[in-house]
Amino acid sequence: MTDTAPRRRGRPSRTQSADAPATRDRILAAAREEFSERGYDKTSVRGIAKTAGVDSALVHHYFGTKEQVFEASIEVAFGPVLNAPGSIAEGPLDGVGERLARFFFGVWENPATRTPLLAIVRSAMNNEAAASVFRRLISAQVLRRVARQLDLPDAELRAELAAAQLVGIALLRYVIKVEPLASADPEEIIARVAPVVQGHLTGP
Amino acid sequence: MTDTAPRRRGRPSRTQSADAPATRDRILAAAREEFSERGYDKTSVRGIAKTAGVDSALVHHYFGTKEQVFEASIEVAFGPVLNAPGSIAEGPLDGVGERLARFFFGVWENPATRTPLLAIVRSAMNNEAAASVFRRLISAQVLRRVARQLDLPDAELRAELAAAQLVGIALLRYVIKVEPLASADPEEIIARVAPVVQGHLTGP
Repeated sequence: MTDTAPRRRGRPSRTQSADAPATRDRILAAAREEFSERGYDKTSVRGIAKTAGVDSALVHHYFGTKEQVFEASIEVAFGPVLNAPGSIAEGPLDGVGERLARFFFGVWENPATRTPLLAIVRSAMNNEAAASVFRRLISAQVLRRVARQLDLPDAELRAELAAAQLVGIALLRYVIKVEPLASADPEEIIARVAPVVQGHLTGP
Repeated sequence: MTDTAPRRRGRPSRTQSADAPATRDRILAAAREEFSERGYDKTSVRGIAKTAGVDSALVHHYFGTKEQVFEASIEVAFGPVLNAPGSIAEGPLDGVGERLARFFFGVWENPATRTPLLAIVRSAMNNEAAASVFRRLISAQVLRRVARQLDLPDAELRAELAAAQLVGIALLRYVIKVEPLASADPEEIIARVAPVVQGHLTGP
């Protein structure tokens, strides 16, 4: 958000002397755009640099490899998402299915967060580096926190089966666009899926 | 299966005069291999022709466009699968969840059918033509037959939510390889997921 602050000394920062945080943000925005549009494999550091209006060397300087730019751009996109869900995991256990489903579809129904999610999901299919980011996102974040709260020996498997239900719906609804699922009211999907997620997590 | 019949007049069929069914089969096998390894976008008719040891024109002659070769290679791979599941849809309704789950993981656990499935799933993420094959495969086949038997106004949505659970598990287990799901015993997964599939299809 540093871009929104007034910067009197700002100039069209195409050089290393450019204001560092603003340049870094611009590279991240460009990376998100490129990865979303082209997928991981077809995106290059050079293409990201071009979209951001900087030299490739600057991208490497700030982030390192293409994989590292990918991770950083995803983390920035999901920062608010990944740090918020304490409330999902920490509320009463018997409402966790609905809270998770509502949170999940909230993220996917919002075009601003859907675009980078689509980029990860698409890229994860075809590329090991992107798959590992996706794996980390799924297992280390929301679901592992939920699993920890469950305190059952099979908590992680339960959490992953719940995740599979949600991810599968995202795939058929937003990527493959199977009807009638693609046009169904999100509230109807949440109502049908919350008990399934709940059952995976806390059922017998 | 024409390859298994004895062919006295067979010869190294690199020309249009080659035995037609055998050549067609060889092109399909090459297509399956190419699509599985490279995904839809990176596969070319020329590459398929090269792997099959024929001229590109022959691929076009038998199948038409790349999309049509893709469809044909998927249909051949899933012929036995797509035509068998009458028994899944037609058995007693209260066991349909387990029959579907068992059938699904039977197909995915078998390396011979897993490879082309991975190719469809990967390709469907990045390409509309491949996505439409996937859509057709999901909606027009097993699940629609099950939905028809259900005779409920929301049967298709039910069938798709059930499919989403299964496809989501396939994604996390076989493509993204999230642990512990990736190493779990298929029987354990079937035991946990059959009631969910059943619930989607016939539950309240």
